[in-house]
Amino acid sequence: MHILVLGAAGMVGRKLTERLVRDGRLGNREITRLTLQDVVAPQNPAGNTIPTKLVTSDFADPGTAAPLVAERPDVIFHLAAIVSGEAEVEFDKGYRINLDGTRYLIDAIRAIGGGYKPRLVFTSSVAVFGAPFPDKIGDEFFLTPLTSYGTQKAICELLIADYTRKGFLDGIGIRLPTICVRPGKPNKAASGFFSNIIREPLSGEGAVLPVSEDVRHWHASPRSAVGFLIHAGTMDTAAMGARRNLSMPGLAATVGEQIAALERVAGKNVTARIRREPDPAIISIVDGWPRQFDTARALKLGFTTAEKTFDDIIRIHIEDELGGKFVA
Amino acid sequence: MHILVLGAAGMVGRKLTERLVRDGRLGNREITRLTLQDVVAPQNPAGNTIPTKLVTSDFADPGTAAPLVAERPDVIFHLAAIVSGEAEVEFDKGYRINLDGTRYLIDAIRAIGGGYKPRLVFTSSVAVFGAPFPDKIGDEFFLTPLTSYGTQKAICELLIADYTRKGFLDGIGIRLPTICVRPGKPNKAASGFFSNIIREPLSGEGAVLPVSEDVRHWHASPRSAVGFLIHAGTMDTAAMGARRNLSMPGLAATVGEQIAALERVAGKNVTARIRREPDPAIISIVDGWPRQFDTARALKLGFTTAEKTFDDIIRIHIEDELGGKFVA
Repeated sequence: MHILVLGAAGMVGRKLTERLVRDGRLGNREITRLTLQDVVAPQNPAGNTIPTKLVTSDFADPGTAAPLVAERPDVIFHLAAIVSGEAEVEFDKGYRINLDGTRYLIDAIRAIGGGYKPRLVFTSSVAVFGAPFPDKIGDEFFLTPLTSYGTQKAICELLIADYTRKGFLDGIGIRLPTICVRPGKPNKAASGFFSNIIREPLSGEGAVLPVSEDVRHWHASPRSAVGFLIHAGTMDTAAMGARRNLSMPGLAATVGEQIAALERVAGKNVTARIRREPDPAIISIVDGWPRQFDTARALKLGFTTAEKTFDDIIRIHIEDELGGKFVA
Repeated sequence: MHILVLGAAGMVGRKLTERLVRDGRLGNREITRLTLQDVVAPQNPAGNTIPTKLVTSDFADPGTAAPLVAERPDVIFHLAAIVSGEAEVEFDKGYRINLDGTRYLIDAIRAIGGGYKPRLVFTSSVAVFGAPFPDKIGDEFFLTPLTSYGTQKAICELLIADYTRKGFLDGIGIRLPTICVRPGKPNKAASGFFSNIIREPLSGEGAVLPVSEDVRHWHASPRSAVGFLIHAGTMDTAAMGARRNLSMPGLAATVGEQIAALERVAGKNVTARIRREPDPAIISIVDGWPRQFDTARALKLGFTTAEKTFDDIIRIHIEDELGGKFVA
C-alpha cells in the first residue's frame, strides 16, 4: 500500500514515519510506497528500505495537493498545520494553511473520482474546545474554540465529516491531547512547560514552572499519539457512522502530580531542577484550556494509550528519547 | 443608521425589510439608509420613505461584498444562502455561496479597518445538528450536521465567532426553527408539508401529509423569526461572551397537534382538506431532524417568540398573510 504523510517533518510526523518504516506495514498490509511531504525538507528515516519520495512544498499553495493525491495513496495522514500561537498572530496565514490547505487537499481527492476514496486521518486538537468547561468534556460537548487555530481545526473536522458523508473520502479526525513529554528544545509555546519540567531536569538542565501545581491538564505520550494515528489509519470506520471526529484518550494530571511522578521515577535531585516562576500571561492562557475528558467513544472504537500513569509517560520518554538513561 | 440586508428577496428577508420600513427604526435608532441586496432583484416595500438602495448581485462573487460594506452599514443582516436541498445536489455551488460568500463578506468587513466593527446578524439553522439527538437539544450539544447545508452553516458560525473574538466585527448567529406557516406556494422542500397542511386548507385547497401524525418538530412563526433578527440586531452582545451562536426559541408540536390546532382555529371542514399519503423518502429525511430544543440561553438573552401555542401560529398566519380571513 501507498501512504502519504503531510507535515512529515514535524515532531509527530517524524515519529509516525519512523514507526511506519520500522513496522514495514500498516495493519495487515505491507507498505510498498511512502510519500513524505512538508514545507521544510522531510528526512528519510535511517535504514528505510521502503521506496520513499520526499516532497518539499507549501500546503497553502493551491497546486500542492493535486500531484500528491494523483498517485492515489491508500492512506493519507494529514498533520500539516501551523501551530496555535502562530495562527493567532498571523491571522491570514493561519486560515490559508490550516483551513484553505485542507480544502485544497479534500477537493483534490474528490477531483480524482473513479472510486478513489482514501482513508484520510486528520490531526485535530483539544483547542476546538473553549472554556467554560464541565469537569470532564464528553463526546457530545460543543465546539467553541477560543483561538483561530482551534477554529480552523473545528472547521476542518466539519469539512472532513461532510466529504466523508458524500462518499468523496473515508475521513477521521482525532483530537490529540497535549503531547508529553515533547522531545527537543524548550520552545515558546504556552504549553511548553508541561514537557519542559520533565525533559530538561532529566537531562540535567533547569526548567521553569510558570503556573501553580494544581493546574490540571490532558496528556498523552508521543508513543500514544503515533498509536492513535496508526489505529485511525487501519480501523473499520463504519462503526463511526457520520460522526467522524473524536477526542483521544489521555491522562489527566496536575502539575503537582507530574512532579511527584518525576520524583518517583528519577529522584529528588532531578525535581530540584524545577524553578517556580509564576507568569501571569501563561497562567491566564492555561486557565482557558481543557483539563480532562471522558473519551468513552474513542475507547469503544479501540483507541488506547501506551501509558496508565504519569510515571509511564516519563518512562516512555526515557526509553524512546534518552536511550534508557537520565542525569540523576 | 444604515442597515444592509443580504438575501433581502427571500421570504425572511422580505418580512424583515417590511418590518424595518414599518418601524422606521432599529431599537432606539432611526434608520436613515437601507441597502437591500439579493441575487434576484429585491423589491422596495410599498410606502418606504427611507432612502433605499437596491442591489442585485451574486453573493458567491468575490467582488460582491466589498462595495456593500464600503458604505459602512452599522448593522448587516446576512440571510444570503442557497437552501438545504439545493446545497446537497449542487455541492460546489453550496460551498461557494454558503461558505465562501460568507468569508468574502467578513474579510471585506475586516479589510475596512479603522475601528469599523458592524453588528453582523447571521441566520444559521437547526440543520447544524444531526441525529441521534437527546429529547431536547441543549445549548451545549455538539454540531454534527448531516447535510452540506448544515455543515456550511456550522462553519460560518465558527468563522463569525472567531472574527468577533478578534475584534473584526460584532457577530451573532441565530439558528432559526422551521418557519411555520411559511407563506407562498407549496414547494418541494422536504419540510414543506409542515406549512402546506395549514396554509393550503385555510385557502380552500387540498394538502398532502406525507408523514405520520406523531412526527414532532420545532417551529416558529415568520413574525417570531423577524423578532429574533431585530433583537439580534439591537441587543447588548457583551453578555454572550465568546459564544456567539445560539438556538432560537420555538414551539415543539407533533403533526397531530398541528392538525388539532387547525381544527380548533378553523374547524373540521378545513382539516378535512388534508390527505394522508405516506412518502417513505420524506419520512426517512424527517426522521433525522431535531424535534425539540432547550433554549435556556436564548431566553435569558431576551429572545422571545410571538406565539405561545400552535393555535397562535395559525392565527398569526391568518392575520399577517390572509387579512384575517380564511376559507371555512
